[in-house]
Amino acid sequence: MHSITDLQALIKNTFESASFSGQPAELYDPITYTLNLGGKRIRPLLVLMGCEMFKGDIQKAEPALKAIELFHNFTLLHDDIMDQAPLRRGKETVYKKWNTNVAILSGDAMFALACEYLAQCEPDVLPLALTTFTQTARMVCEGQQYDMNFERLKVVSINDYLEMIRLKTAVLIGCSLKLGAILAKAPAADTDKIWSFGENIGMAFQLQDDMLDTFGDEKKFGKEIGGDIVSGKKTFLLLKAHELGSEKQRAYLDQLYSESKTNPKDKIEEVKKVFHELKIKEITLAEIDKYFNKALNSLEAIKVDKVRKGVLEQFARELLIREY
Amino acid sequence: MHSITDLQALIKNTFESASFSGQPAELYDPITYTLNLGGKRIRPLLVLMGCEMFKGDIQKAEPALKAIELFHNFTLLHDDIMDQAPLRRGKETVYKKWNTNVAILSGDAMFALACEYLAQCEPDVLPLALTTFTQTARMVCEGQQYDMNFERLKVVSINDYLEMIRLKTAVLIGCSLKLGAILAKAPAADTDKIWSFGENIGMAFQLQDDMLDTFGDEKKFGKEIGGDIVSGKKTFLLLKAHELGSEKQRAYLDQLYSESKTNPKDKIEEVKKVFHELKIKEITLAEIDKYFNKALNSLEAIKVDKVRKGVLEQFARELLIREY
Repeated sequence: MHSITDLQALIKNTFESASFSGQPAELYDPITYTLNLGGKRIRPLLVLMGCEMFKGDIQKAEPALKAIELFHNFTLLHDDIMDQAPLRRGKETVYKKWNTNVAILSGDAMFALACEYLAQCEPDVLPLALTTFTQTARMVCEGQQYDMNFERLKVVSINDYLEMIRLKTAVLIGCSLKLGAILAKAPAADTDKIWSFGENIGMAFQLQDDMLDTFGDEKKFGKEIGGDIVSGKKTFLLLKAHELGSEKQRAYLDQLYSESKTNPKDKIEEVKKVFHELKIKEITLAEIDKYFNKALNSLEAIKVDKVRKGVLEQFARELLIREY
Repeated sequence: MHSITDLQALIKNTFESASFSGQPAELYDPITYTLNLGGKRIRPLLVLMGCEMFKGDIQKAEPALKAIELFHNFTLLHDDIMDQAPLRRGKETVYKKWNTNVAILSGDAMFALACEYLAQCEPDVLPLALTTFTQTARMVCEGQQYDMNFERLKVVSINDYLEMIRLKTAVLIGCSLKLGAILAKAPAADTDKIWSFGENIGMAFQLQDDMLDTFGDEKKFGKEIGGDIVSGKKTFLLLKAHELGSEKQRAYLDQLYSESKTNPKDKIEEVKKVFHELKIKEITLAEIDKYFNKALNSLEAIKVDKVRKGVLEQFARELLIREY
């Protein structure tokens, strides 16, 4: 088996030696620009790890690595237009640097290119790989639409929120691992279990993201704490507080979130006070644990050597840093 | 062999019995809305005709019919945002009826759905079908980007214009026919020739469109004549006039196109006068004929019975109405 460092080297090499340039420049430059913004290339890594677990040939996974990373970056590109986000990984977003039309169209071309790479998978695994990939793509669109819908609502139920993050984020983690397993010609029952592992890790990871934004260690988290509170984002924390809070607590939260005059630091402190009263941190940690354990159960049920599964478990444990 | 009427009935039935609905409604309603706007379903018909020519089983073509029509409608949906077009087939465009974000995202979902349907093709033809489909998708994006770029330029060379319409419009005609041929497991040389037939017919058809907008019979054409001139669109006619005109004629055209005060009817008449002086109509007709003959030559070279090819030739002749 290859080490994670080996796999990351293969990914680095794959993307460094690939060219995504072409004519007209307005169509292809944003693709190169977006891919050069970096990112951790987690999804290609998961493809390789899924492939390795079932003794697949990782050299044959190259098209799928490109497909999954191009698809992920395409969704970011279009999301940035919809969310009017000026920055992505500290750099101007495509729609800001070029314009909306360029961002729409180069995103479309990226999606086409992703499927074009996928077509290079071994023919016998292509039908399943393509079905998995495109169904996931549609789910990610559903998740983004729910996310946009939720912005217009005052309150969203916890179940609806969880379904939204499942679609928007978690399924692509499941899909990446499953794609790798499909390439390795793993049995269908196992490809479903590795998807389930990935999806549940994705849920835990997204909930951890919500948690860290409010309760994280600023130094370790690498960004300012409380951003979600200041921007009024509907996170698991806020929605849970709404669900559990008394009428008075809910009213106070509403007041805090509606007042634009409040000093951001004060606002964060006051919201956190309510969260503490309602034990939101503990509840979120328990929810993260629930998904993490579901993930481990799915992994446990896969019929391969413990050693092969250990790598993925270790990786998941590292993703969930659990330092709050 | 089935008649064109039979094939059209199969297509009608395919789309009437298909459901493209789902949740969230904001994502799927625009898909259903767009497909219900109608359209002639030319591309699915070409898939079936390509399949029939090589004695393929048209019953197995259903996924490809949906894929090609969904893809085509996805491009219209995104183009309408980019072109800020308020109407499509006489109805509000998706970005007008809903909003830009909904139009971007439901378009993305439509493209995903198109590839999802394609994944249902017979496994042995899927690699080639998917490669052909996705490469074409990327070409169509390139064409749209060139088209947008050209809007910012004062003059565009005839070659650049022809390459733009080839990418934006003609390749998808070629792709539709080739997809059908691929489904029928036609030899590679023949699938390339049927693409070439389609691409050249697509070129002739697009040039005819330019021609009819200025020189068509208003009653037969079904829309007002001169729209391209009034809107200042860079058509083959205008670009050819720019290429061939004297300095004085070019200056007069520039003046006519830059003046917003001129009465539209007068503007159309004056521009047509310059076109007549330069024999633009005759030149365009010759260009259409050139592409039509190239198409017929490609068809001629395909190694199947004359009868099987005759249907396609007849269809092409009907598309090119030649009534100016």
